[in-house]
Amino acid sequence: MAERKEFRDLATPEAAHEAIASLDLTGDPEMVPLREARGRVLAERVDATIDVPGFDRASVDGYALRAEDTFGADEVDPAVLELAGEVHAGTEPAVTVEPGTCAEISTGAVVPDGADAVVMVERTDAVEEDGTTRIQIRTGVAPGDRIMFAGADVAAGERALGPGTRLTAREIGLLSALGVDEVSVRGRPRVGIVSTGDELVRPGEAVDSGAGQIYDVNSYTVAAGVEEAGGEAVLYPHAGDDYDAMEDILLEAADECDLVLSSGSTSASAVDVIYRVIEDRGELLLHGVAVKPGKPMLVGRLDDSAYVGLPGYPVSALTIFRTFVAPAVRRASGLPEPRTATVEGRMATEERYAEGRLRLMPVGLVEAGPDEELAGQDVGGETLVYPVDKGSGATTSLVEADGIVEMHPDTERLDAGERVEVRLFSPDVRAPTLFAVGEDDPALSRLLDRLDRPRFLGLGSREGLRRLRNGVPDAAVTTTGGDTEFPATDLGAWTREWGLVVPEGNPEGVEGIDDLVDRDLRFVNRTSASGLRASLTDALAELAEERGETRHDLVSAVDGFEVAVRAHESPARKVLAGDADAGLGLRATADRLGLGFAPVGTETVRVLGNPDRAETSGVLALRSALTAMDDVLADLPGYGRP
Amino acid sequence: MAERKEFRDLATPEAAHEAIASLDLTGDPEMVPLREARGRVLAERVDATIDVPGFDRASVDGYALRAEDTFGADEVDPAVLELAGEVHAGTEPAVTVEPGTCAEISTGAVVPDGADAVVMVERTDAVEEDGTTRIQIRTGVAPGDRIMFAGADVAAGERALGPGTRLTAREIGLLSALGVDEVSVRGRPRVGIVSTGDELVRPGEAVDSGAGQIYDVNSYTVAAGVEEAGGEAVLYPHAGDDYDAMEDILLEAADECDLVLSSGSTSASAVDVIYRVIEDRGELLLHGVAVKPGKPMLVGRLDDSAYVGLPGYPVSALTIFRTFVAPAVRRASGLPEPRTATVEGRMATEERYAEGRLRLMPVGLVEAGPDEELAGQDVGGETLVYPVDKGSGATTSLVEADGIVEMHPDTERLDAGERVEVRLFSPDVRAPTLFAVGEDDPALSRLLDRLDRPRFLGLGSREGLRRLRNGVPDAAVTTTGGDTEFPATDLGAWTREWGLVVPEGNPEGVEGIDDLVDRDLRFVNRTSASGLRASLTDALAELAEERGETRHDLVSAVDGFEVAVRAHESPARKVLAGDADAGLGLRATADRLGLGFAPVGTETVRVLGNPDRAETSGVLALRSALTAMDDVLADLPGYGRP
Repeated sequence: MAERKEFRDLATPEAAHEAIASLDLTGDPEMVPLREARGRVLAERVDATIDVPGFDRASVDGYALRAEDTFGADEVDPAVLELAGEVHAGTEPAVTVEPGTCAEISTGAVVPDGADAVVMVERTDAVEEDGTTRIQIRTGVAPGDRIMFAGADVAAGERALGPGTRLTAREIGLLSALGVDEVSVRGRPRVGIVSTGDELVRPGEAVDSGAGQIYDVNSYTVAAGVEEAGGEAVLYPHAGDDYDAMEDILLEAADECDLVLSSGSTSASAVDVIYRVIEDRGELLLHGVAVKPGKPMLVGRLDDSAYVGLPGYPVSALTIFRTFVAPAVRRASGLPEPRTATVEGRMATEERYAEGRLRLMPVGLVEAGPDEELAGQDVGGETLVYPVDKGSGATTSLVEADGIVEMHPDTERLDAGERVEVRLFSPDVRAPTLFAVGEDDPALSRLLDRLDRPRFLGLGSREGLRRLRNGVPDAAVTTTGGDTEFPATDLGAWTREWGLVVPEGNPEGVEGIDDLVDRDLRFVNRTSASGLRASLTDALAELAEERGETRHDLVSAVDGFEVAVRAHESPARKVLAGDADAGLGLRATADRLGLGFAPVGTETVRVLGNPDRAETSGVLALRSALTAMDDVLADLPGYGRP
Repeated sequence: MAERKEFRDLATPEAAHEAIASLDLTGDPEMVPLREARGRVLAERVDATIDVPGFDRASVDGYALRAEDTFGADEVDPAVLELAGEVHAGTEPAVTVEPGTCAEISTGAVVPDGADAVVMVERTDAVEEDGTTRIQIRTGVAPGDRIMFAGADVAAGERALGPGTRLTAREIGLLSALGVDEVSVRGRPRVGIVSTGDELVRPGEAVDSGAGQIYDVNSYTVAAGVEEAGGEAVLYPHAGDDYDAMEDILLEAADECDLVLSSGSTSASAVDVIYRVIEDRGELLLHGVAVKPGKPMLVGRLDDSAYVGLPGYPVSALTIFRTFVAPAVRRASGLPEPRTATVEGRMATEERYAEGRLRLMPVGLVEAGPDEELAGQDVGGETLVYPVDKGSGATTSLVEADGIVEMHPDTERLDAGERVEVRLFSPDVRAPTLFAVGEDDPALSRLLDRLDRPRFLGLGSREGLRRLRNGVPDAAVTTTGGDTEFPATDLGAWTREWGLVVPEGNPEGVEGIDDLVDRDLRFVNRTSASGLRASLTDALAELAEERGETRHDLVSAVDGFEVAVRAHESPARKVLAGDADAGLGLRATADRLGLGFAPVGTETVRVLGNPDRAETSGVLALRSALTAMDDVLADLPGYGRP
């Protein structure tokens, strides 16, 4: 095993921010067409080079005239002027307004020579008399009335927009008015992403699980993070753990980019190789930061480029990227820190911690009910915050958390009900409208599709009930019956037929759980959190009683009873792959995967609600979706109403 | 003049929202590569088709072993296992772990057959003995320790992401882990923009001001607004006011787009033509809304497409677009309403209104000082809100306002200090760090470039002082001397040489203001708000006294004294264009434009501060920029320190 680099003298998070701030990530300014300039940031000041409007412009439809011809006019005694012609928008006036005359004019047209005011058509009458048209003006107007003078909006030479201005629809409007069709904007920092690790495969390619291959998560995740921060992401091919290959690819990226990020490898040897390349070919500013996750972070320079090494696990990589790197990319892009990057919430549960370094704790959000209490405090309508900690290797934490709570090295505990500030993963993150935990089920999946932004954690019936008792989720999904030892509301239920999923055509002729016990079948079970497993255990207990044996005897006779997999489809998929003769599962799953099925029983899946949240919009929507799910049940074999 | 359509029966704003909501703007779903999916919205649920991880995976660097071989082991009495081989990440294990043996394993590698746990390397020692390597395990481990089982993160068949999920870095990470490289996303609604009006010219082309041409502002502005709302904007060529041409282009846009917006024309006749086309070829749902600005809004259908007619003035068009159309585009795109679309503020001044329809009042924001009072109320640290009303024809209102305050039809007055809610133009709009009003000046323009997001309104010295007295801006820029009748702080000052800008080489031999009075020169003045004009008036008064005449006599003798233009460069540009023999201006301007100059005097430009804001970061930055502006002054001919 390669010699390990221990990170004894960890830098403070502040020192890491400073080290990254000392790097220059700024790209070169570039000219872009106005039509593509939205979201970019001006590299230099734009002064107006023309007057806007470029001429004295009528602000209304009406008549251009000499103001003094109307002095004293009113409804009773209108001024009467001869109509000398007309001027339309976009045409050069062919008429001059002499004393005693006027010209019809449309909004936006050039005020003709001789005229110094415009009267709106609503205050006039046209009168035909002896074949000539005369206009009665029923009001007196002052010089300049209803005229927007040349340059009154913007005058040539005026400062229109300053450097650093971010171009939104409004600024693009002003630039259009000035006739500007291309602008000099700050270059987007080019960020090269080098992912390391021999085991990584790009999405879309085939993955060989037996050889320990996994899909590369960090490259695309970090690339999206770079783009969210206003940078341009460039993905490089995977580098292995070999020094020369790593050096080649890091130097290529450094040559082409303003910042190089490496990420992906979780192995100490790959990290060591990168460390040596940066030390040999660049400058290492910082190695190791007192932060969890993300301790093995590197900051340095490589040729003229900046370099940051991110941790290997996806959640860690993204957290460290957002915390330390994204602000620097935004600064270089000229983009502001997102305004609503934080929300205030209350801890839903107590959380202890004592590792002596800054913890960036991923958390989920859930909205409390209107009258909810927590640890004796009123938290009605507030946002509750619960830790999401599935181990940093889990990619699902990426979407099960909404943001980060910082726990400082000297914070040993956050109490339930304590106020915390949550740094959101993106400014438009919101608490899900519904947060449910429990048994996973194909009918439930379809039901969730009908709700707006629900969050469901398929942790099994038992965990669903445990969390509902603790008051965190809005609802639990359970097969373990509706009688709970704590208050819960009944939101709805359906039934599903369960049994043994067997190969297509049932070649072994499996008929039920007797066969599991009595024959030499390779079986795949579900984990103990699952309601399906509880149903199987009950059925085995019943069979044991019938036979006058103990449940333990029967369970021991099942080859694979302890081979437990997590999701409802997993045992069936083992059967499909030829790795098992029978798997615990649903008729609906067997049908969908084209497998055989030996029915054992029917169980009820119940959705139980948190009484504090009975009237939230998400729970009301869930309740009505549960009432209206007959089409879903009809579509799934073995499903029905209790 | 074409017959006018009067808008007597105006629809309510709610009816307009409903009419637009009744239109279907949804585009067809499309498949996009994952790498380009950021910001898009899933069209359908994504279920996992593989287990993640796809194999039992070591979570640490260490040794894979059989847990029971370590039972009872501790620091004092370690278990000793024979090293049977090694497994690296990304390779297929070539070793089976038999009882009494272990295999070296790296993080992420496949746990080899026979092993049911991994121990971290930190709790082990390798010992060479008789040429074989033995590993001392200094701790007991349980089955499953330090292993992430296949499917523990995501199991095949699990619901991974629901329809309607917006794809950010996190969701892209999860999809990568599942090996998904393209996803079905909601189509962006295609929005065709037809701009009408014969006078419109696209930015970048030449504009003929004499013929009343102006640049098309609405097309690009509304296109940017469409894109901000998640739509795809398609610009169509300008349509004139001719029925057939308008019909052709509207039908073409309706054929190609989900929504057609028309915009640009301010003339009643063009609006009438569109109205007739929609009535003849589509369906008109609504015509005219009781809202200011934006009364003449149209909503309807044209073939299978939705249609909305926006008002012609840019600020009105963008306001109506944002208020009524953008929410519908966002809904069709599946994007959420921006979270921070609003801020709370206090009216800086009283505002009266009594037009009986909903007013969407553009407002600017400025941050109050820490101890500021307003109308007897403490407004320390709050956001103050002032109306920006330059007439809806002004494009500069686009960037001088930060958002909209709604004044309801029955609200006749908003008091100074009253709380109002401001709907921001974009979620990341912030109050400028500095808000100044007053005399425009080339040194000031450069100074502003050095500040972060300043706002300066070049309304002249007089208006600057007036507003500073009312307490709204942070600073005023004035040439009218430092003695004010109200408290103000002195932030800095410079001097500038002013006089008469004349054609290159001064062909008429103009030497000073005597020539303006005594000779037949075409002169161009500045508006009366300008400090430069005040200096000229003072100089004429002095000359009158010398000559024993009245100032009025002298002013009357100047041909063009009343020809007043707004910005400091405007008179010089009139001279440059050959439209005048002399213009009021600065030596710096004459030099920059390659013109001649007859000096008249030197005036001091002072920056006066609002005493309540003396310590805000923007004012402190301005003060220090004023101190450090010697390079700016050295670079401008005729500039110096007082």
